[in-house]
Amino acid sequence: MTEANSLLVEQIFRDASFLRTLGIQLTAFGFGWCEAQVPITPAFYQQHGFVHAGVLMTLADHTCGGAAASTLPVDKDVITVENKISFLRPAIGELLKCRCDVLRAGKNLIFVEATVTVLRKNEPFTVAKASSTLLVIPRAHTPATA
Amino acid sequence: MTEANSLLVEQIFRDASFLRTLGIQLTAFGFGWCEAQVPITPAFYQQHGFVHAGVLMTLADHTCGGAAASTLPVDKDVITVENKISFLRPAIGELLKCRCDVLRAGKNLIFVEATVTVLRKNEPFTVAKASSTLLVIPRAHTPATA
Amino acid sequence: MTEANSLLVEQIFRDASFLRTLGIQLTAFGFGWCEAQVPITPAFYQQHGFVHAGVLMTLADHTCGGAAASTLPVDKDVITVENKISFLRPAIGELLKCRCDVLRAGKNLIFVEATVTVLRKNEPFTVAKASSTLLVIPRAHTPATA
Amino acid sequence: MTEANSLLVEQIFRDASFLRTLGIQLTAFGFGWCEAQVPITPAFYQQHGFVHAGVLMTLADHTCGGAAASTLPVDKDVITVENKISFLRPAIGELLKCRCDVLRAGKNLIFVEATVTVLRKNEPFTVAKASSTLLVIPRAHTPATA
Repeated sequence: MTEANSLLVEQIFRDASFLRTLGIQLTAFGFGWCEAQVPITPAFYQQHGFVHAGVLMTLADHTCGGAAASTLPVDKDVITVENKISFLRPAIGELLKCRCDVLRAGKNLIFVEATVTVLRKNEPFTVAKASSTLLVIPRAHTPATA
Repeated sequence: MTEANSLLVEQIFRDASFLRTLGIQLTAFGFGWCEAQVPITPAFYQQHGFVHAGVLMTLADHTCGGAAASTLPVDKDVITVENKISFLRPAIGELLKCRCDVLRAGKNLIFVEATVTVLRKNEPFTVAKASSTLLVIPRAHTPATA
Repeated sequence: MTEANSLLVEQIFRDASFLRTLGIQLTAFGFGWCEAQVPITPAFYQQHGFVHAGVLMTLADHTCGGAAASTLPVDKDVITVENKISFLRPAIGELLKCRCDVLRAGKNLIFVEATVTVLRKNEPFTVAKASSTLLVIPRAHTPATA
Repeated sequence: MTEANSLLVEQIFRDASFLRTLGIQLTAFGFGWCEAQVPITPAFYQQHGFVHAGVLMTLADHTCGGAAASTLPVDKDVITVENKISFLRPAIGELLKCRCDVLRAGKNLIFVEATVTVLRKNEPFTVAKASSTLLVIPRAHTPATA
C-alpha cells in the first residue's frame, strides 16, 4: 500500500458527511482490507429495537470502499456498483464493527466482502455478511458511474 | 388490505427511530405496495457529493418492509432476510422517492422489489433498484430472525 | 439497434455450447431487451422434481447478456460481473421463458433485469426474478474480466 | 452430523438429475460444510470459450444445499430462496471445485457461502464467490416454497 492509498482511504472516511452523521469511524486498514466501527445509539433503531438494516448496510458499503481504495493506482478512485447483504441475526448491542477484504482487484472492477459484528456486553456476534462490486474510476474527475 | 395491515404499515414507519433520524416519510401504500420519500440534505453525502449508498439502501429496505407488511395476516410481522441493490446512477438532487412492490407473498417469505428515484430540479432519475427477501414472523413476539 | 447489435445477440446465443447442451433458444430481441426459452426435460430436475435452480440461472444469465449486447457500440462486447436471483415458486411445467430488460446501459457497465416464467398446461407462472451487472469489454480481444 | 444428515446430503446429490446431466460429484462433507466438483468439458462453454456462468451457479447452488442439509433436524429439508454470485475471473481449466460453508443455521432459514475454484494445469484459481439463503421445509412433504 502506497502513501497515496493510505491518504485516499482516510479521505474517503473523512470527506463523507453521512459517516459523520452516523458516527462511523475508520479504525484500521492495510493493502486489501479495511475496518471501521460505530457506537450504537437509539437513533439507529428500527421498529423492533434492533439496529436498522440501513446502518449495517452503510457501514458495510463504506468500509468496502475503503478496502477497495487501498489497492488502487494513484490516479484512480472507486464507486459502488452494487451490493448484497444477508442479515444473519438481529443486531442488538453497544458497538458495530466491520471488516472488509478485497476478493479481487481488477483493472476495472474490485470485488470486496464484508463481515459486520455486533459487540453485546463485549461478546461478538456476526450479524451480517455482504458482498460488493466497485467500479474503478478516474480520480479527481467527477465520477460518471456505470 | 385490512385495517390491521394499514396500522402495521404506519407503525413500521412511525416506530423506527432511524427513519426519523434521516427524515424518511411514508407517503402512500396499498395491498402489496408502498411508497416513501426523504428530502436530501448535505448530511447524507458521501465523499463525491452524491447521496450515500446507505441512505438509498435504508429507504429501499424500509419501504420494502412496508410493502410486505401490507400483505400480512393479522398476527404476523416481517423482518428483512437479505437485500441486493444496484446503483444505476449517482444520486444528486433534492428529493429521494422509493416505490416498492411485492413480487410474491408466501406463507413464510415475501419477495419485494424497490425502485429509488431522485428528483433533480423536478426531473426524475432512477438511481437504484433493489430486491429484498423478508421472513414472516409472529407478531408481538420478539422476533428471532432466521 | 444496429445490424451489428443484431448479429452480436445472435452470435452470443449461437456460439455458447452450454446453451445447445440445454436446448436454450433465442426467441426475440430488440434494443435493450431479449427473450429466450427452453423446453423442460427430466434431465433438468433437482431432487424434488422441480427444474434445477441452475437451469433458471443459466437462462436468466445468458438472456441478460443478450439484452445487454443489443445496446453496445460496434467494437464492444459484454461479460457478466455478478447476478442475483430470487426463486419465487418451484418451477414445474413444460416450458421456461425468460424476458430481460436493460435498466441502464453505461459506458462501462450495463444493468439488466430478468423475469423467468414457467408454462404449466399453458398457464404462465413467474418462477424467478434476477438482476445482473455486465462489464463492457473490447470486442474480439480475449476478454480479461474485472 | 447425524446419520440422517449424511443420508440426506448424499440423496440431494444422487436424486438431482440435472447434476448427473452435468457430471457434478459430491466429494466431501461434514456438519456445516460440503464440497463438490465437476470435470470441465466443451459442452459447458459460453461464447468466449470460458465455462458458462450457469455451470458455476449450478455447482455453487447445489453444494450450498448440501452444506445446509448437513445441519438439519431429521424431519426437515431445504430449498433455495435466492442466491447471488460474483464472477471474479473467467473460468478456464480442467476441473471446477466448490466449497460451501454454513454461515448461520436458523430454525427457518440457513445462510451459506460458496467459493468456486478452477484447476488449470493443477493450479487453483478462485473464479466465483456466492451467497445463498435456503428455507427449511418439512421433509417428505412436497415442498411448497416461500
